[in-house]
Amino acid sequence: MKRIGIVLKVRKEKIEEYKKAHEKVWPEMKEALSRTGWHNYSLFLRDDGLLFGYFETPVDFATALKGMEKESINEKWQAAMAPYFEALGGRRADESMLELEEVFHID
Amino acid sequence: MKRIGIVLKVRKEKIEEYKKAHEKVWPEMKEALSRTGWHNYSLFLRDDGLLFGYFETPVDFATALKGMEKESINEKWQAAMAPYFEALGGRRADESMLELEEVFHID
Repeated sequence: MKRIGIVLKVRKEKIEEYKKAHEKVWPEMKEALSRTGWHNYSLFLRDDGLLFGYFETPVDFATALKGMEKESINEKWQAAMAPYFEALGGRRADESMLELEEVFHID
Repeated sequence: MKRIGIVLKVRKEKIEEYKKAHEKVWPEMKEALSRTGWHNYSLFLRDDGLLFGYFETPVDFATALKGMEKESINEKWQAAMAPYFEALGGRRADESMLELEEVFHID
């Protein structure tokens, strides 16, 4: 399993809406994530909207993203999430996720 | 297991040194982390020095921190790491870690 860390920025004024949406992520979206290799996936939010994602995957970040691109439910989910994010410049959130460098790990 | 997300800020001019130090974390420090409930612990770095930590613990963040406070190796490690971090205001890095709110998880 490869460990992936990603970062995004939620608009501060949209934080509560973003959190509510993530309490009820569509079951089809969760199934698609599992099917395309997004395991042990968590999202963590700082109070200014900084969003940190962590997941483990048998593939790599690019392949996991490509897997979700083929899922029609993802297109709908990303369209629903787009208004919550800062500075996406017309891109979807999943196209704007910045992969971080893992600099330390212990099991 | 509780999942913990934390954030810190490495000084941009110290990033390479910080990365090198984390390629050779002292074995005694790793053992102390494992012993005090820091499992599956990863650190991820953005190129501006933003640092995200993720770990899983049978206790909670405060208890995991307290466990490490009792380890003398941690005092030495934190003293060695202090110059790498921004705005610690005289506090050690482990006293400045900001715990993030988990807003989503799938297994």
